[in-house]
Amino acid sequence: MESLPLESTVFFIFGATGDLARRKLYPALYSLYCDGKLDERFAVIGLARREKTNAQFRDDVYRSIKEFARHQLKDEEHWNRFADHFEYMPLDIDDLSGFYKLRELTERMNEKFNILGNRLFYLALAPELFATVSNHLKNSGLLDSEGWTRLVIEKPFGYDLDSARKLNDQIRTVFQEEQIFRIDHYLGKEMVQNLEVVRFSNAFFEPLWNNKYIANIQITLSETVGVEERGGYYDKSGALRDMGQNHILQMIAMIAMEPPSRMHPEDIRDEKVKVLRSIRKFSSPDEVARMVVRGQYAEGTFKGEKVRAYRQEDKVDPQSETATYFAAKVYVDNFRWSGVPFYVRTGKRLPAKTTEVVVEFKNVPDNVYLAKKHNLEPNLLVFRVNPVEGIYIKFNAKNPGADFKITPVAMDFCQNCNIGINTPEAYERLLCDAVRGDSTYFTRWDEVALAWEFVDPIAAAWTEGKDRLIRYPAGSWGPAEAAELLARDGFKWWPVNGQREGELIWVAPS
Amino acid sequence: MESLPLESTVFFIFGATGDLARRKLYPALYSLYCDGKLDERFAVIGLARREKTNAQFRDDVYRSIKEFARHQLKDEEHWNRFADHFEYMPLDIDDLSGFYKLRELTERMNEKFNILGNRLFYLALAPELFATVSNHLKNSGLLDSEGWTRLVIEKPFGYDLDSARKLNDQIRTVFQEEQIFRIDHYLGKEMVQNLEVVRFSNAFFEPLWNNKYIANIQITLSETVGVEERGGYYDKSGALRDMGQNHILQMIAMIAMEPPSRMHPEDIRDEKVKVLRSIRKFSSPDEVARMVVRGQYAEGTFKGEKVRAYRQEDKVDPQSETATYFAAKVYVDNFRWSGVPFYVRTGKRLPAKTTEVVVEFKNVPDNVYLAKKHNLEPNLLVFRVNPVEGIYIKFNAKNPGADFKITPVAMDFCQNCNIGINTPEAYERLLCDAVRGDSTYFTRWDEVALAWEFVDPIAAAWTEGKDRLIRYPAGSWGPAEAAELLARDGFKWWPVNGQREGELIWVAPS
Repeated sequence: MESLPLESTVFFIFGATGDLARRKLYPALYSLYCDGKLDERFAVIGLARREKTNAQFRDDVYRSIKEFARHQLKDEEHWNRFADHFEYMPLDIDDLSGFYKLRELTERMNEKFNILGNRLFYLALAPELFATVSNHLKNSGLLDSEGWTRLVIEKPFGYDLDSARKLNDQIRTVFQEEQIFRIDHYLGKEMVQNLEVVRFSNAFFEPLWNNKYIANIQITLSETVGVEERGGYYDKSGALRDMGQNHILQMIAMIAMEPPSRMHPEDIRDEKVKVLRSIRKFSSPDEVARMVVRGQYAEGTFKGEKVRAYRQEDKVDPQSETATYFAAKVYVDNFRWSGVPFYVRTGKRLPAKTTEVVVEFKNVPDNVYLAKKHNLEPNLLVFRVNPVEGIYIKFNAKNPGADFKITPVAMDFCQNCNIGINTPEAYERLLCDAVRGDSTYFTRWDEVALAWEFVDPIAAAWTEGKDRLIRYPAGSWGPAEAAELLARDGFKWWPVNGQREGELIWVAPS
Repeated sequence: MESLPLESTVFFIFGATGDLARRKLYPALYSLYCDGKLDERFAVIGLARREKTNAQFRDDVYRSIKEFARHQLKDEEHWNRFADHFEYMPLDIDDLSGFYKLRELTERMNEKFNILGNRLFYLALAPELFATVSNHLKNSGLLDSEGWTRLVIEKPFGYDLDSARKLNDQIRTVFQEEQIFRIDHYLGKEMVQNLEVVRFSNAFFEPLWNNKYIANIQITLSETVGVEERGGYYDKSGALRDMGQNHILQMIAMIAMEPPSRMHPEDIRDEKVKVLRSIRKFSSPDEVARMVVRGQYAEGTFKGEKVRAYRQEDKVDPQSETATYFAAKVYVDNFRWSGVPFYVRTGKRLPAKTTEVVVEFKNVPDNVYLAKKHNLEPNLLVFRVNPVEGIYIKFNAKNPGADFKITPVAMDFCQNCNIGINTPEAYERLLCDAVRGDSTYFTRWDEVALAWEFVDPIAAAWTEGKDRLIRYPAGSWGPAEAAELLARDGFKWWPVNGQREGELIWVAPS
């Protein structure tokens, strides 16, 4: 069933001239078309404020695909057939009459492409506009359709628990929870989805997946970029809300969850909710100061070039106290994970762009047999999420030669190192899932709420300012205090992709 | 200490003109010299019946190194310095007076190279000669030395338990058990030694290493050659004595043994003895017929060329009932391994030359979660011993793409795939160990005796002939009955290096 074309659908792209649409959505739609997931029974309606002709819109889409799609553009006939499904309509979101016009356009498209009434509303918009759009969709009758209607929304989903709840309540007056698909694009990443597969389809890993065998888990989401043109948004949100509340907590949930009883989306999300509920909340600003390190990048150098400090970035307050980096030690207080620290870190202007999960196993006893004479390193199981996609195990083996020495070596499975494998983008998978109605890799409201419940006390402690905001030079691995967080427990951050560790050098495929 | 040069030693090579000396011993000595393990304080005395000058002998050694050594010959000066350590002396083993002459030569060499009296007697001879040589060594006073004296002997060590015991008793009238180094060159192989390291230096593997998680273990020692010029010897011994009694049982012992309390050779061998003692002996010819498959190669084709049947080989009885292939199901009846079958097989004229250990793990329950919808293959941990040296894990992962499919993939560590790694030969390691007095990777008398106790009832049942000797075409994987041996238990032989399995093709480095 999964390899069949998707059901006939109209895709409504609100924010059709924006960055997300251009970089991710049009390329994803093109890939789905090339891969046969979209047959001819679909339509894409681009919606934004500015005036634009269909021809202009299709030109924009063409350029975005040329720049960002993983499929090469084919011949003109193929392009024209694809582009014919795209129409543009200028829309003032505050004006209901525009939505009536949109409804007429939709009916025409339905007829033209033989679409049975399924409608996917993709809001690539500021969250402040979600309520208005939802209401107008309802009042214009666009939701009165023979097929299904679904809403896809992007982060940020609120600024704290209160604002998120308000936002949710507004949307929920129009849409049911089952109709709402909250995108966390990390959940669409190949290797994040693989976490679950590797855990639950291999007898090899399952017995080891608990506090008896695992010493700690390290999650790194590092970026090399600064805030770029997003200074205005970022200076309000910061690393904790931009990366911690969603991606990092979701990844913890994927790693830590119990096996679901069924493969149904709700059962899987129930298990993730259980993890989020078991994460130990910080009970005081002092505890936050002890368990969380926050940093902001200062001037520094990246690849030999001088880069400016965060406070000098466009649209950033020159006195800003916003964190562009944080590291935290998190506990999941349940039977499986009791006592196992999850060390997480994310930051901008770090030396390498990488997303990685390192599972460090408890070492063999150090006073027994081989460990007596040899300095044995602990075993690692590493999930490389981005940009290299792969899994490797670091284990100890005999150094080849007549001398009996033991060295750590890596057993490696590199998914996108193989020539010819062109891994689909997260957005392709997520668009597919949304059309199929599979909400597994979208975040449910209770997940969002629990994530805010964890994040809010940290944000509050930071506002109170009991702990220091530490400046780290752009191009460095962040505040030294993040290393101390682990060193206090006798651990260290393992090198991630892009860092060197002895002979173990991992290079992203070019 | 291990990287220091070896103690000063005189190496006595009995059978200096033979195949083993030429193919293995001289090349190994040269490698040790190049690697700095042998400094200038050593001598090699070649001994054989035929007349030969030192110059002729050194020429022979030169040619053997040129053909078989893993180090390239360096300049002439380097060669001359090395060759200067080699002397040849014709010796009639039955004549004691020759041993007196040998003693004089030894004293001269000791002086010339400043050697302190250590003597390694390497008997690359037929076992019938071991007793005579031992006695003459003793009676000529060659064992009266300030340094140590050690005896290195090659297989076969007897033909059954009785003959082995007789042979051992003869040697033991001259040498103590601690002085006797019985070579099983499989124990010198990099990856066989790695079995122990991987098991005992990785917390990752140890918890899984028992009957709770392991479904079965498969050991394959396949050869592509026929009997070649060894027909006379082989027709008496056959696959069971030539490969089973020593290499295969030793590998089972290495895989199955409990962690030793110390790294001392005797403690390690004690653990191996415990395994050999726990191997379930076949109690009747009927049981042998049920648990062991024996085969003999008939005419066939190998790499497109017609090859003759075993019975047509030189020096082989045209009515020979000797097995050139056997497969067996073996149980180690102890707490760790109870119920886990060890499937072993070895044969001549099979399609690929490979030595491999496959550990098949019990699968995840097939009616749970992902396994309900997906056909999950069990996890494998594979030790590639020869010719490829490496380890891989076969596990299940997500098929890249928008469709949620699960496929088996391999996480791979290939040791000798890396350019520049030139793994030492087993004989280098074993010669080093013998000089160091480390008997870990040599077989002790009680191991030999227990191995014969297991093998003798099989050989007896075969003589009785209750089961059939099955002809298999040369170039095939042996009798179909060997597959049934596993199929009865719901298992199958996993493809080994050189076989294909879907996308998983493993090619030996050229």
